[in-house]
Amino acid sequence: MRALVKPAAGPGLEIRTVPVPVPGHGEVLVRVRAGGICGTDLHIEGWDPWAASRVRPPRVIGHEFCGTVVGVGPGVRDVSEGDFISGESHVSCGRCHLCRRGEAHICEALQIIGVDRDGAFAEYVTMPAQNAWKMPPAVPMEVAAVMDPLGNAVHTVLSTDLSARSVVIMGCGPIGLCAVLIARRSGARPIVAVDVHPYRLRLAKRMGPDRVLNGRSDDVPSIVRGLTDGAGADVLLEFSGSADGLRTGLAALRNGGFAALLGLPGRPIELDLTNQIIFKGVRLQGIFGRRLWETWYEATALLAAGLDIRPVITHRFPMTRFAEAFALMREGKCGKVILTVGDTPRR
Amino acid sequence: MRALVKPAAGPGLEIRTVPVPVPGHGEVLVRVRAGGICGTDLHIEGWDPWAASRVRPPRVIGHEFCGTVVGVGPGVRDVSEGDFISGESHVSCGRCHLCRRGEAHICEALQIIGVDRDGAFAEYVTMPAQNAWKMPPAVPMEVAAVMDPLGNAVHTVLSTDLSARSVVIMGCGPIGLCAVLIARRSGARPIVAVDVHPYRLRLAKRMGPDRVLNGRSDDVPSIVRGLTDGAGADVLLEFSGSADGLRTGLAALRNGGFAALLGLPGRPIELDLTNQIIFKGVRLQGIFGRRLWETWYEATALLAAGLDIRPVITHRFPMTRFAEAFALMREGKCGKVILTVGDTPRR
Amino acid sequence: MRALVKPAAGPGLEIRTVPVPVPGHGEVLVRVRAGGICGTDLHIEGWDPWAASRVRPPRVIGHEFCGTVVGVGPGVRDVSEGDFISGESHVSCGRCHLCRRGEAHICEALQIIGVDRDGAFAEYVTMPAQNAWKMPPAVPMEVAAVMDPLGNAVHTVLSTDLSARSVVIMGCGPIGLCAVLIARRSGARPIVAVDVHPYRLRLAKRMGPDRVLNGRSDDVPSIVRGLTDGAGADVLLEFSGSADGLRTGLAALRNGGFAALLGLPGRPIELDLTNQIIFKGVRLQGIFGRRLWETWYEATALLAAGLDIRPVITHRFPMTRFAEAFALMREGKCGKVILTVGDTPRR
Amino acid sequence: MRALVKPAAGPGLEIRTVPVPVPGHGEVLVRVRAGGICGTDLHIEGWDPWAASRVRPPRVIGHEFCGTVVGVGPGVRDVSEGDFISGESHVSCGRCHLCRRGEAHICEALQIIGVDRDGAFAEYVTMPAQNAWKMPPAVPMEVAAVMDPLGNAVHTVLSTDLSARSVVIMGCGPIGLCAVLIARRSGARPIVAVDVHPYRLRLAKRMGPDRVLNGRSDDVPSIVRGLTDGAGADVLLEFSGSADGLRTGLAALRNGGFAALLGLPGRPIELDLTNQIIFKGVRLQGIFGRRLWETWYEATALLAAGLDIRPVITHRFPMTRFAEAFALMREGKCGKVILTVGDTPRR
Repeated sequence: MRALVKPAAGPGLEIRTVPVPVPGHGEVLVRVRAGGICGTDLHIEGWDPWAASRVRPPRVIGHEFCGTVVGVGPGVRDVSEGDFISGESHVSCGRCHLCRRGEAHICEALQIIGVDRDGAFAEYVTMPAQNAWKMPPAVPMEVAAVMDPLGNAVHTVLSTDLSARSVVIMGCGPIGLCAVLIARRSGARPIVAVDVHPYRLRLAKRMGPDRVLNGRSDDVPSIVRGLTDGAGADVLLEFSGSADGLRTGLAALRNGGFAALLGLPGRPIELDLTNQIIFKGVRLQGIFGRRLWETWYEATALLAAGLDIRPVITHRFPMTRFAEAFALMREGKCGKVILTVGDTPRR
Repeated sequence: MRALVKPAAGPGLEIRTVPVPVPGHGEVLVRVRAGGICGTDLHIEGWDPWAASRVRPPRVIGHEFCGTVVGVGPGVRDVSEGDFISGESHVSCGRCHLCRRGEAHICEALQIIGVDRDGAFAEYVTMPAQNAWKMPPAVPMEVAAVMDPLGNAVHTVLSTDLSARSVVIMGCGPIGLCAVLIARRSGARPIVAVDVHPYRLRLAKRMGPDRVLNGRSDDVPSIVRGLTDGAGADVLLEFSGSADGLRTGLAALRNGGFAALLGLPGRPIELDLTNQIIFKGVRLQGIFGRRLWETWYEATALLAAGLDIRPVITHRFPMTRFAEAFALMREGKCGKVILTVGDTPRR
Repeated sequence: MRALVKPAAGPGLEIRTVPVPVPGHGEVLVRVRAGGICGTDLHIEGWDPWAASRVRPPRVIGHEFCGTVVGVGPGVRDVSEGDFISGESHVSCGRCHLCRRGEAHICEALQIIGVDRDGAFAEYVTMPAQNAWKMPPAVPMEVAAVMDPLGNAVHTVLSTDLSARSVVIMGCGPIGLCAVLIARRSGARPIVAVDVHPYRLRLAKRMGPDRVLNGRSDDVPSIVRGLTDGAGADVLLEFSGSADGLRTGLAALRNGGFAALLGLPGRPIELDLTNQIIFKGVRLQGIFGRRLWETWYEATALLAAGLDIRPVITHRFPMTRFAEAFALMREGKCGKVILTVGDTPRR
Repeated sequence: MRALVKPAAGPGLEIRTVPVPVPGHGEVLVRVRAGGICGTDLHIEGWDPWAASRVRPPRVIGHEFCGTVVGVGPGVRDVSEGDFISGESHVSCGRCHLCRRGEAHICEALQIIGVDRDGAFAEYVTMPAQNAWKMPPAVPMEVAAVMDPLGNAVHTVLSTDLSARSVVIMGCGPIGLCAVLIARRSGARPIVAVDVHPYRLRLAKRMGPDRVLNGRSDDVPSIVRGLTDGAGADVLLEFSGSADGLRTGLAALRNGGFAALLGLPGRPIELDLTNQIIFKGVRLQGIFGRRLWETWYEATALLAAGLDIRPVITHRFPMTRFAEAFALMREGKCGKVILTVGDTPRR
């Protein structure tokens, strides 16, 4: 089959022909329909220090995807051939104390599809059956392809109660954009979306926040206080992963506020804990992956209730044109970018 | 009356004779019996940048104290002459949105006794009646004098449920030492207390934690994992205010753990948020002052149930010998240091 | 001034001329513009056992209201003559342990305006200044008149996180109707509203729930399970105060669900705790009044964000025609009924 | 093998010889060492309506037990022959939405060992490997035999934070007695234990609560208020399953208090929700089984920290003398009663 592969230690990717994988005990074989390109894929393509320390080539990459189950290994009960599924990329061990305590999203032995095992930018992929989430037929294929990052947004936004609360959403990449949509549906007001790239600021406006601010040129904390009777925001949702973004977001947060952090800073960052966390009595929550499987139930419920994230998806490429897609992502002039696999027709 | 005064901008303190203050509307006049010296008092004595930016001399200092009510201003209902009281040093405005939401401990217009208004290292002090907490007669005078820092410990320790949970207590100054005692009574096991000063490590052992570690010479994260089946601690209570302390404490925390931060770093510090907060799904809570007045009810209940913090109190000086007391504090060879005021006999 | 008065022990009310009240220390005098009739007012009019045990005639009744501050007593700081305000009917003591712990809504010495002290179906009323909530000018007078029952709905609905959760709203009186509106804005889906009166069922439909069911003729638990993949509702909001309503609601709740109870049963009711609460691991929360003052901030934020409860208000009468208004309420063919006071023009 | 069997529909039990069971996929075979008799076993023996509706004879009963793994079925990874284990009696399906959301303790397809499948009052029993909790070698055999009811107590007591909180423990059967021990270790003060049987009142005193009251002859609410500055208890832990017990407990609870309900009333009971739940703003939580597997981690941590529940265990019988043991249980003059199986020596 054709697959997008990190062939060896060092920058670059290539399309290769590799064997179709065979599902093991409790696993399913999925014919991939479409996938989403994640920032992680860029790190692997560019072979940054994190990728070099973790990925063992040759490795098929890609972890946001949907497809159809075309084979099931022994011991699989709840997924069948023909099921249309979206993939959860985090494979938890099911055995550690975190998995047994209902915190499998921070499993100590977590494996990630497309990072630690072969991924989904390929005609076929295998994974544990429990990682194949059956999608309602009404969900568009492109949406099903990006349930994984949508789940990041759901996990972050629903980590606190937003109804009648003011919120700053820092970072308007695809996850931040989804967060704007979910925060609106959850009753947050006002919603202030912040980014620094003109393309993303324009895209953010289409999601309907109350204000879109440029983190570089606008005085975010002061504007947020102006919108909240001088108090500051009740909630910060941090998706930028930048030191400036986090510091600005915390400065815009009210005393006693709540901050959920999903964006991953590339290195340690300096924080004024005394003035921005301790004196203010701030609560802060690190967010990783999706709660297994609470987040998936919530995401499915949001879609059923009418959440439409298609405006977040701005570009599509066939997998063979991956180089263009990756280049576009690096340029930042896009929302979510979809790779379609093979010549399967649109669903 | 005699009072310990910051006479002018710059280092130093002196005993001066100043007028006895007069209680205003809703205020009480308290004859001070004893006080505790806080790190804040050292900052004011030494006139560090924080003190220079905030304190307006001449100012009577001192904010941990107990005494007897000897006068009440108009409008006071619930405190009477003769009441033996302990002082809450944070005077909240009662009018801002935080005060009205039950979060007066992070009031936006907070004033601190001995910092923003005249304090209690004096024969008499005035304060709002609500800041005078009536003490049960059985509480020893020295304990009543330090309800304010005890309250810091109570606020921090009771910010999460500790029963059957493992906890790292970082920093064994007086507040950290009280925290060890409270964590024990709350069912935390194992309790690992960490400091770097030999005097404090010795003192910490007397509080009965399961382990006392030297943050400089011991591999704290590894030892904590050894004590917790490899998981790491459920809870970090951070009192050191040092970058190393916080980083070590976070490294010892398990995935999904909870960290309460009370110690105040003197400047912004660098944190590896990605690996220590986000990937681990850590919850972090900034802790300031005491919850008004939940913490006081809790502290009173703990004392009634037998909590004895006298082992934390290691030295006493009459107020006239303040210079010796402050020098001892700077040296670090002490627990809580008490100043007795006037020639009042021990209660 | 003219006032609606319970003149003596026994059924009935009458319009009387009584002296204009004088605001005491910390109190304000309000010229009343409009009020809402509450079920409690019917109990007092009819002189049921509860009313007989609590109300001491002669008593001016009425506790849902808005008006303009026309006088301030000594010691009032934050409210001024000319302020347009809505009244909080629960006067908490400010001194008991619950008030001091941020739980003033369940104050042990609570007094209710129009029940324990003279009320607002009158040209003027006095109350503590803190109970006068300044309304933004954009809020319509009729809405300002019923912030008290709106606050009941806000308190109930925001007692749990509703985004992406299914909810049964039992009882479609004015508070239940407001709850439907707030639940929708908070992202609840599906929302199932239940009542037994045809008028209220028709009115409920206008609030936009996903389904309106007749608690007598529809099999509510079965229909709710049909809407929720067989699971049952995540949340029950109980406003009916009827035994049948509560039992039906609990039967429709999923294992691990949450129930908030505001409706007041008139007498003890029989519950199958074993099967409906314990085996199912249900959480249940009693809701009384409004959180002081969190609920008011939330209600104000909801109005600012566009919540429009005017469809809940179905009838208006001048105070002099109170008998017609009360008769209509007893018949049940109404939503919220407003009494306008004096000849003040619509605002 | 020899087993204690419900032979047919109707009252009675008998020792029979039955085949040794064979562990299926993912199951283990355990040689039973000892078991605890539960109230449920009495219901099955007596064949009450619940038993008649649920149990399908012939059925080996018994669900509190410990033993040694002597065989493992295919697919078992984490349990090995020779492991000393305690049994979790609730077999969750692992597939329903509750299991997938981390709420397996209220699984919709729950099966109970000794009720829905053959149990442990037998020389051997099989169960899913995940239900076999490996016990530290230091735990006494009798304690390992009753981890299941100890887990009920742990689940109930740790459902809220008890440090510095007052608690009423209603019902001093084995689970209530364990709850007293755990509440003490968790910092609850005062602890008031209530029962009506003289034997149990005497036994309760040995667990060290602050007060033991007779629910029939003592005025529990009034005494509790006397112990709590007039407020009432912060927390009610209800194990009696009796209407009187629950009503008394709620009457002793303070406004804003928390009640955890584990005791199972035999039929619907009448509650004054208006005055005991709603006006008081009470939170109530139904408790069933043990959180899987959080409760087991907590129980293991409590034992490691020194919790000793042996005083709760008052009688031992060999399985052959089951009739005497059941008669004693019916009489109520006992704490936990242990059945030893076979001639295995004490561990």
